[in-house]
Amino acid sequence: MTVAVELIVNQLKEVLTEEQVSTNETVRQLHGRDESHHSMSLPDIVVFPRSTADVSAILKIAHVERVPVVPFGVGSSLEGNAIPIANGISIDFSEMNTILEIRPDDLLVKVQPGVTRAQLNKELKKHGLQFTVDPGADATLGGMAATNASGTTAVRYGVMRDQVRDLEVVLADGSVIHTGSLAAKSSSGYHLNGLFIGSEGTLGCFTELTLQVYGIPEFVTAGRAVFATVGDAVSAVTALLQAGISIGRVELVDEASIKQANIYNETSYNEKPTLFLEFHGNEAGMHADIEFASEIFEDFACLSVEFEQDNAARNKLWEARHSLAYAYIHAYPGKKLMSTDVCVPISMLADSVLYAREQLEQVGLAGGIVGHVGDGNFHTLLMLDPNDAEEQAKADRFNEHIVQYALLRGGTCTGEHGVGIGKMKYQSTEHGTSLLVMKSIKAALDPHNIMNPGKIFTM
Amino acid sequence: MTVAVELIVNQLKEVLTEEQVSTNETVRQLHGRDESHHSMSLPDIVVFPRSTADVSAILKIAHVERVPVVPFGVGSSLEGNAIPIANGISIDFSEMNTILEIRPDDLLVKVQPGVTRAQLNKELKKHGLQFTVDPGADATLGGMAATNASGTTAVRYGVMRDQVRDLEVVLADGSVIHTGSLAAKSSSGYHLNGLFIGSEGTLGCFTELTLQVYGIPEFVTAGRAVFATVGDAVSAVTALLQAGISIGRVELVDEASIKQANIYNETSYNEKPTLFLEFHGNEAGMHADIEFASEIFEDFACLSVEFEQDNAARNKLWEARHSLAYAYIHAYPGKKLMSTDVCVPISMLADSVLYAREQLEQVGLAGGIVGHVGDGNFHTLLMLDPNDAEEQAKADRFNEHIVQYALLRGGTCTGEHGVGIGKMKYQSTEHGTSLLVMKSIKAALDPHNIMNPGKIFTM
Repeated sequence: MTVAVELIVNQLKEVLTEEQVSTNETVRQLHGRDESHHSMSLPDIVVFPRSTADVSAILKIAHVERVPVVPFGVGSSLEGNAIPIANGISIDFSEMNTILEIRPDDLLVKVQPGVTRAQLNKELKKHGLQFTVDPGADATLGGMAATNASGTTAVRYGVMRDQVRDLEVVLADGSVIHTGSLAAKSSSGYHLNGLFIGSEGTLGCFTELTLQVYGIPEFVTAGRAVFATVGDAVSAVTALLQAGISIGRVELVDEASIKQANIYNETSYNEKPTLFLEFHGNEAGMHADIEFASEIFEDFACLSVEFEQDNAARNKLWEARHSLAYAYIHAYPGKKLMSTDVCVPISMLADSVLYAREQLEQVGLAGGIVGHVGDGNFHTLLMLDPNDAEEQAKADRFNEHIVQYALLRGGTCTGEHGVGIGKMKYQSTEHGTSLLVMKSIKAALDPHNIMNPGKIFTM
Repeated sequence: MTVAVELIVNQLKEVLTEEQVSTNETVRQLHGRDESHHSMSLPDIVVFPRSTADVSAILKIAHVERVPVVPFGVGSSLEGNAIPIANGISIDFSEMNTILEIRPDDLLVKVQPGVTRAQLNKELKKHGLQFTVDPGADATLGGMAATNASGTTAVRYGVMRDQVRDLEVVLADGSVIHTGSLAAKSSSGYHLNGLFIGSEGTLGCFTELTLQVYGIPEFVTAGRAVFATVGDAVSAVTALLQAGISIGRVELVDEASIKQANIYNETSYNEKPTLFLEFHGNEAGMHADIEFASEIFEDFACLSVEFEQDNAARNKLWEARHSLAYAYIHAYPGKKLMSTDVCVPISMLADSVLYAREQLEQVGLAGGIVGHVGDGNFHTLLMLDPNDAEEQAKADRFNEHIVQYALLRGGTCTGEHGVGIGKMKYQSTEHGTSLLVMKSIKAALDPHNIMNPGKIFTM
């Protein structure tokens, strides 16, 4: 421990208890990485706040001492978002994991940032309620707000930004603000809620979140529809959306991925582009929607379609989709998963997926494509050897092509994983002059650039 | 015309044509007011840009010369939002009213800011599409984005902020940025889209909007349900929302307002708190929803309920709600309408409406209450004599009580009309320390405070 670090540790121990401040090597290692392929970088210190006051006290010290600070949930980010590349302090929110209030009449819940979505849903279920954002990982809600996470249900319920009614945020100087209210809508003042969500810890630390929840739908039906081409599958979804049919989830899995899932699950599904669907609603409406959807699928030369309403049968039907990442990880022992994350206007999705497949073959990488097809967001799952620089370079080149293709068509380089380290190089192309506006906001709120410095953009 | 104004006019005429720059008294009068009761204040100059380049040229001059600038749509704002209280230049967007692009496959449309919502919907109808935000007035889409407008359909489709995919914005110094992309979701960079929407012309002028549109629903049913008390009516809606029933619109009209509507329309509806509803969807699902809704209404002692599916019958059924403002205006000739606009957590709505009714009687003003009850947003419609200072003072006191009541319960002072002049005095109470964050953002983006100065907050 350097003298400089020791000075900070001593100051932190004046405002926190002994066990809330750690410089232990193992603890630092755990906070020096996320689930991405990005290189590890250790924090000098890890702190475990238990209250907003703790977080404020930590930031006051960091602000005065110009120490970088990175908020940390469970480290499930996929673009290095939580890696302390400038070292400093990692603020671990695992001890701020209380569900503070459930207001069933208001369909609202107030939580601390360390609450995970599974923890919240377990509690909400008792009230017949659900929190809808499902990014796959059992991430913390603070982390999900920081990256504007979404996932399979966004097509129906929206992304993280749509669910947050209010945030309590500790700013770089330790001051505490609220960004919204409990009202369902507001035209009062600037929309700070939206600004802080997706800011990836670069503008402040979230210490409380008030989130919108929903009633658990009366009926759920799962479906699987197989198509001859990716184009047909995507066009069918576009037609469904245009018809105003309310889809709970709709995921595209490409043929290479079905093949991988078949190996992993010992199944023998038709190795063709497949849509995995979910419909939510009342029974009568859902049946009408399903009937209408089946007709639309036929118009797009659907090879087969099946629906299941029973819980176990639904899970079985979705298994190939749910197990996809594991299927790849299992098939490539020792390799690390890398995922692209572009989102394009839906009319461009079919061509984008085909382009991704072509590029994949051209650079000679194995991988599968899975798409949140109702939103135009798709991931190419690549398996990389972390010690193989050539393979990494291929993957980077591939990602570059996918992103440039998306940006040229009005899309975004990241639909849900955030910028972190991995998407910084595309910010200027994507945002142009508005990047200057973002930087001026960052400079106004964090003048010493201590909040997760070196993420999203460099100052 | 003062020498200072003449200098600006001459500069403007160097970048615009002669007829795009006006100092005509009548033209200035038309741009010195909105539909609110707030006092008139004239711009020195009115300009009519025809392109983004025109707007940029205007702002470059204003920036250098430190001239206040206020964007103007059709002047339908309700809180003085478009009134140039510091004089200067009013930028009238009526000549930038082209629908630039309709992308049915992407459910997107690109428009200039002067396009009105009726104009857009007329065009969209040809494609089986609709733009859903309906604030009542045939406002411009630029103006609606500037105040984050909403209205009766927000419960189903969300507010203006939910519909905007991208804005082209001319900043105070004349530079042009884009705040979003065409992608349905993004985690790339700060959410400038959300920040600019609702900024009421204080951060920049919108010159292009890319908006999300929806398929026109297959079936629409209108409903009207009469309750013994406001509490019963609101509780019934809460139960509907919790059950996850998808309501297209749900409006509460109080007994005093039904009485007024009866007089105006020569009807004899039961003068009790009434819900006006709309259900959208496929026929089977809608019927199931309606059946379920009727059962819920019975649980809350509903006195009568009726539904209509035919277009003419639906309009007839909603007549009392649609004609409400006119009913009041007609009953009080010579008076001006003033509307409160708080939004509260829905569990607080019934008590808030009762409180508003009590306060109304206490201050001795005539008025009706109408609520976007699915969002917790309600308006008290007051008829005021603009020359009667005492009546105005009473109304101000009443508004003050309603707002304080809402803020104490986690609500907002304005659900959809914006801050403008009228809600400035509540910004500090509502936002606390975060008002400083808003001001620092304003200072960073508009250092000379030329963009609609004196609105939302004073610098």
